[in-house]
Amino acid sequence: MIETPYLLFLGDAPDPLAAKVAQGIKDWRPDNCVGQMRLEGCNADMGLEDMTLAEAKAAGAKTLVIGVANRGGVISDKWKAVLMDALDEGFDLASGLHNLLRDEQELAAKAAETGRTLHDVRIPTVKYPIADGKKRTGKRVLAVGTDCSIGKMYTALALDAEMKERGMKSSFRATGQTGILITGEGVPLDAVIADFMAGAVEWLTPDNDPDHWDVIEGQGSLFHISYSGVTLALIHGGQPDALILCHEPTRTHMRGLPDYALPSLEDLRDLALALARVANEKCEVVGISVNTKALGEDEAKSYLASLEEQLGLPAVDPYRHGAGRLVDALATI
Amino acid sequence: MIETPYLLFLGDAPDPLAAKVAQGIKDWRPDNCVGQMRLEGCNADMGLEDMTLAEAKAAGAKTLVIGVANRGGVISDKWKAVLMDALDEGFDLASGLHNLLRDEQELAAKAAETGRTLHDVRIPTVKYPIADGKKRTGKRVLAVGTDCSIGKMYTALALDAEMKERGMKSSFRATGQTGILITGEGVPLDAVIADFMAGAVEWLTPDNDPDHWDVIEGQGSLFHISYSGVTLALIHGGQPDALILCHEPTRTHMRGLPDYALPSLEDLRDLALALARVANEKCEVVGISVNTKALGEDEAKSYLASLEEQLGLPAVDPYRHGAGRLVDALATI
Repeated sequence: MIETPYLLFLGDAPDPLAAKVAQGIKDWRPDNCVGQMRLEGCNADMGLEDMTLAEAKAAGAKTLVIGVANRGGVISDKWKAVLMDALDEGFDLASGLHNLLRDEQELAAKAAETGRTLHDVRIPTVKYPIADGKKRTGKRVLAVGTDCSIGKMYTALALDAEMKERGMKSSFRATGQTGILITGEGVPLDAVIADFMAGAVEWLTPDNDPDHWDVIEGQGSLFHISYSGVTLALIHGGQPDALILCHEPTRTHMRGLPDYALPSLEDLRDLALALARVANEKCEVVGISVNTKALGEDEAKSYLASLEEQLGLPAVDPYRHGAGRLVDALATI
Repeated sequence: MIETPYLLFLGDAPDPLAAKVAQGIKDWRPDNCVGQMRLEGCNADMGLEDMTLAEAKAAGAKTLVIGVANRGGVISDKWKAVLMDALDEGFDLASGLHNLLRDEQELAAKAAETGRTLHDVRIPTVKYPIADGKKRTGKRVLAVGTDCSIGKMYTALALDAEMKERGMKSSFRATGQTGILITGEGVPLDAVIADFMAGAVEWLTPDNDPDHWDVIEGQGSLFHISYSGVTLALIHGGQPDALILCHEPTRTHMRGLPDYALPSLEDLRDLALALARVANEKCEVVGISVNTKALGEDEAKSYLASLEEQLGLPAVDPYRHGAGRLVDALATI
């Protein structure tokens, strides 16, 4: 769908978190990344070679991917100048921003003139059905979190990578713009019309071989009041056979909601499981995935060990230590 | 927003349920209804005077409201002929259909020519914010159901009517097309983009007097896998202080989902309350509203009495017996 390889545009990212789209692509599809392009004031770095458009083109890049969130929902003039040049140089553009490339008249005109494609991956391109709740063949696992932006996508990508490494059948099913930019396909669930959310997830995870796993990217959190409805549509549309609980131990409040505390992992387990069993009564919580980035190695290991004790489930940081034990647990389902 | 009074268009409704929009308007805003207009084969009847367009116009009607669901998502030629004539006669048109009046080229052209307005109430006209979860002043009650189409809107309208009767401050907050057509304003929640659902509900129920009640129309059900995400957005965006459980005792499976059984009222109570307390830890379940239409009077009374015993909450059919006891319960919050 989106032509590879990519040049990753980091713009003037104020901090590394603003460039998390680029980070995700670089971490999970490094072979698709020719280099990075940064503007003055950029405080993110993927550790890729800094390139001009011409250098990236010479190195084979086909698409300039906007790997950074824009400030205030505006594509700045500085960005636009680069994007215009990129179209002139023969790049397609791909973006997951809320404000669309296609809505920028200059970009739309330039793309038409140069015959290039503008990929706005945040916009659904499919007319999704209303969910019918029918049982599908194949197996499904979904990551659910105590909060948003807590490692659900990385957990799913790590599970998928480990399953493929073992020769198991699996598909990472992207439900957000980063996931879609990484895999080139998926459902931009937060942009789907409310009535069709669960149906879009059913569409994304159709009948499959009995031993095939759909590894579904989670969104939001049941405990994040801004996005919890999206999370529940994933749980009911995905009909997961297994849930993985995701957590980040140093978060002091729900992301963007200073008055809201994080739930306990027990509360997440109980609530997510009660809801999941509406659609699939055999659903089980099989493990815990922790983003331990903020902890030292010893601290991370002792924290994970204490969680295992506390909840009686394997607890790992799949990005740091591999997803093997979570896949072991899934293999018993 | 929508000019009153109305002429209710029942079209060729195959059965009374197909005309539930008209029924809702007639039941809750009878003063807004000048008459009804039916085509050949219509099996619905509001008990209003059957009128031609000219008769309704002479009686003062300003807007022709489509009070019936169309079949197969198509506005038939028979309907369209009436709608064209209505524009010529000087009526505005209002519709909650999925397929829009404005998308019918002939209607759009005729409305432009005659200077009339096409109200497609299913389409959001506001750019809603992302929910911020901040505590608002005033009180809020939300109806949640064991299933869809189980009486949540009627329950909310009955609560609002009883509160107004008692001189309490209250506003019915419409979240679906029928509710919007009844009150002339609201949020068509099932047509809102996923990310903005909870924010739309916050927008609908802003800060208010400490003793004012927003009576929020429910949508879907936490146990209906097609629409549960919409329900959760209502719970988290609405931050209700009180929940009313809605039920219909003769339903044999979830609406449109033959393989899904209805939950018990206890399951609904526990799940809805756990989720509501994420946004408002003081939320309480205060009563049960039962649609007893399918039961005889004695049967209804004994069923309600048994529910009261079973759950320790007032259980009433607010449409049949009034919402007084539910309002009594709310008054203690």
